[in-house]
Amino acid sequence: MKRPPDGLSPIVALDRRLGRPLHRQLYDGYRDAILDGRLRPGQRLPSTRSLADELGVSRIPVVTAFEQLGAEGYIESRVGAGSFVSPALPGHAPRPPTAAPVPGGRRRVPPLRLGICAEPWLDHEGAFRVGQPALDEFPADTWARLVARRSRLLPRRHMTYGDAMGLLSLREALADHLRTVRSVRCTAEQIMIVSGSQQALAVAGLALLAPGDAAWIEDPGYPGARDALTLAGARLVPVPVDAEEGLDVAAGIARCPSPRIVYVTPSHQYPLGVVMSAARRLRLLDWARRRGAWVLEDDYDSEVRHDSQPIASLQGLDTDQRVIYIGTFSKVLFPALRVGYLVIPPDLLARFRRVRDAMDIFPSPLYQAVLGELIRDGHFARHLRRMRAVYAERRRLLVSALERELGDRARIAGDRAGMHLVLRLPRGADDRDLAAQAARAGISVIPLSSCYLASRGQKPGLVLGYGATRAAEIADAARRLTSILVDHRRRGV
Amino acid sequence: MKRPPDGLSPIVALDRRLGRPLHRQLYDGYRDAILDGRLRPGQRLPSTRSLADELGVSRIPVVTAFEQLGAEGYIESRVGAGSFVSPALPGHAPRPPTAAPVPGGRRRVPPLRLGICAEPWLDHEGAFRVGQPALDEFPADTWARLVARRSRLLPRRHMTYGDAMGLLSLREALADHLRTVRSVRCTAEQIMIVSGSQQALAVAGLALLAPGDAAWIEDPGYPGARDALTLAGARLVPVPVDAEEGLDVAAGIARCPSPRIVYVTPSHQYPLGVVMSAARRLRLLDWARRRGAWVLEDDYDSEVRHDSQPIASLQGLDTDQRVIYIGTFSKVLFPALRVGYLVIPPDLLARFRRVRDAMDIFPSPLYQAVLGELIRDGHFARHLRRMRAVYAERRRLLVSALERELGDRARIAGDRAGMHLVLRLPRGADDRDLAAQAARAGISVIPLSSCYLASRGQKPGLVLGYGATRAAEIADAARRLTSILVDHRRRGV
Repeated sequence: MKRPPDGLSPIVALDRRLGRPLHRQLYDGYRDAILDGRLRPGQRLPSTRSLADELGVSRIPVVTAFEQLGAEGYIESRVGAGSFVSPALPGHAPRPPTAAPVPGGRRRVPPLRLGICAEPWLDHEGAFRVGQPALDEFPADTWARLVARRSRLLPRRHMTYGDAMGLLSLREALADHLRTVRSVRCTAEQIMIVSGSQQALAVAGLALLAPGDAAWIEDPGYPGARDALTLAGARLVPVPVDAEEGLDVAAGIARCPSPRIVYVTPSHQYPLGVVMSAARRLRLLDWARRRGAWVLEDDYDSEVRHDSQPIASLQGLDTDQRVIYIGTFSKVLFPALRVGYLVIPPDLLARFRRVRDAMDIFPSPLYQAVLGELIRDGHFARHLRRMRAVYAERRRLLVSALERELGDRARIAGDRAGMHLVLRLPRGADDRDLAAQAARAGISVIPLSSCYLASRGQKPGLVLGYGATRAAEIADAARRLTSILVDHRRRGV
Repeated sequence: MKRPPDGLSPIVALDRRLGRPLHRQLYDGYRDAILDGRLRPGQRLPSTRSLADELGVSRIPVVTAFEQLGAEGYIESRVGAGSFVSPALPGHAPRPPTAAPVPGGRRRVPPLRLGICAEPWLDHEGAFRVGQPALDEFPADTWARLVARRSRLLPRRHMTYGDAMGLLSLREALADHLRTVRSVRCTAEQIMIVSGSQQALAVAGLALLAPGDAAWIEDPGYPGARDALTLAGARLVPVPVDAEEGLDVAAGIARCPSPRIVYVTPSHQYPLGVVMSAARRLRLLDWARRRGAWVLEDDYDSEVRHDSQPIASLQGLDTDQRVIYIGTFSKVLFPALRVGYLVIPPDLLARFRRVRDAMDIFPSPLYQAVLGELIRDGHFARHLRRMRAVYAERRRLLVSALERELGDRARIAGDRAGMHLVLRLPRGADDRDLAAQAARAGISVIPLSSCYLASRGQKPGLVLGYGATRAAEIADAARRLTSILVDHRRRGV
């Protein structure tokens, strides 16, 4: 692109049949566009040549109009750069349409049952922010090199409409990866690439639920899953989770014996961090098989385990195609990738494909191609190994800081995996107030009580992420947090 | 990343309390993983050092196990490259779980009302494929340069979770662009970036509709819009479109006087190509205001106009915040970008934001950052000008080829805009059969009848895209298509 860039043309109606000469109509049109804010101070204008071409007129009226606009101070020309709306004009912002009150007779929008997303502890990115990986340890140079190369190669088939399931090369690499590392039983054909686990949940919900269908969800649990299933019309049935074995399958059966969907995080429950026991896994699969329910296994951070014995996926135990397996690269690489995936039972493939097609057609291929390369070349496996060591170290530092500050009052829940743990608080502690106080002190913890749907059985606590908190910051941040806790207890709140 | 890359570890359970030595447990675990397909022939294995670290054992049992696996031919080592599963093993594919028949007692999935996506004319990318832009004219070098630079810069805030509305820098550039070029009345705060107009429709539908709410849709119309609104629970009300004025608002009012949503493509109706008349625009807005309906204005290809007089958006005429404006970069740049946008009335912003958050949280920032730069620097405006000339020329060539071959039987519908036109066929012609025949001859046209929802009022025709068909190919492809038509007529079908 050697020629100087060009500006945009506002809509100016020219009519040769009008008495007014063309240059006058152009002048009026541009002046109006400047005065009513459609063209802003400093905004680039088209060249007189391209504007004349576009309007199908000679250059003379265009040059005449621009000269007059320039003479009156509406626009100015800079040698070699083109013409611009004068930056000196009163910079009135374009008037936003005001949010008009809804008149009495007007129909209201239907009630939206989604949760609230503005909570003080979600506002900023302080220490212990949950769900953020160690971006400081991300191999940014390798990544940039791979992205740059892929974007130069950009083949034609990566520019047109693509497969709703995603790029086959990534799906093949992922199938190998999941079979090996997670004991998932799958072929590439069963994998759908989506823009993160949130879209995976939304697609699964819309594919499987009719409005009002029951869905078991873990309680406490992941609010994003509640929102995705609610969006799809689910009637949520909270099922308790205990700190020893995970989802209480018997309690679920007692409350709602025929759910259409069961949402579960068996490898590392969010937020409690417990690994679901083998007995409960088998009971859940057996129940799902007998009742024709589907199990959404959200394996959101299973790649990040600190111990030597990994936990095989629930999907790998399923002999009856009742499990939809969900994973994401948000935690092992970075969230803004927006790449996650579903492993779909063969008899549901056509259905999921149609829902995805209706929702957003297909995913953009650039990052998919880079990820496929990263996995195939072994960079990904090495990055996982490194990150496990990083997170194990950060967890160790956090636990010892909490134990140093709180002594035997430090009750820590959660297996040694993932990027978060739970600090349990004494009965009656107001964890929301504590989280709000911590947020004001620059520390982003999530109150455990905010993760419950049912009001019964709530236990106070704080969910602490250690993924994105550097080792050097952990002790100090833990000290600031615990001093808020100690203060809170002293005040007897 | 200087060290050689590393392979993945399958799940192998080690138990020191078992009688079997560790090297034997490792050998058994890896052999099983190879035999049952979790490790494929040729797949890379972890190094003995990293596997020993990971399992928390000394290297000796790992080396012993690998030596035995090597001796028995399960794995092989290559100097400097690491160990791999032997490529020579019988390459049994991993067994896909078979699609089991649904037992009688099992609950079935709810009926999915989405359309069928496998039609012969959608299968491949021949000449006249609808909805594809001129990728051969895309400034691929400039694009690759901008993407490479942005991906090297990758700031931390573009790696973490971002705003559900999208990147502010792109929204600001787009607000300027839309105010100037489309007379859209908006500020950057009202713009939400989504992954194409399909997601825009899905978000709008899920934000505004309760299950069973009525939605007017143009008939004939865009099947993707029908699918997105159906996904959101809409009851579709087909409203006829006439070739002179577009959506027949009076007919819509007669059929369904209180829709919650009206879907319309006023600038260039898909598929008929008609521009909606000013009288019908004002009537629609007035009706929407009085009934509290929302209008989804899908301005999918409005940037591509061949004439000098652009058509201002419907949104710019709306004084009562009833219009949700939808645009996309798929047609002006390339579809695999997956970037589109909504302009949302201020009183609906919180609602749309919540739905987007539940659907997929936020869009990936890389391409957004590049697009913002492209618009601000003027490259985008120049590209638009160039593409208009390209499409005007391709349309001219197609129309004259059709007229040359068909004489006065060439009845062409559609204003001089966008990237498609409609070739009308005589009453009784079987346009689906013709499109299927054309597909077999490598020509991708869409039967007009497939764009209708109602069975009444269907008119046969072929929708021809000229966006992606090179000028040099147009005459020949038109000749092959018209010979199929002439044949069809001769056979009296």
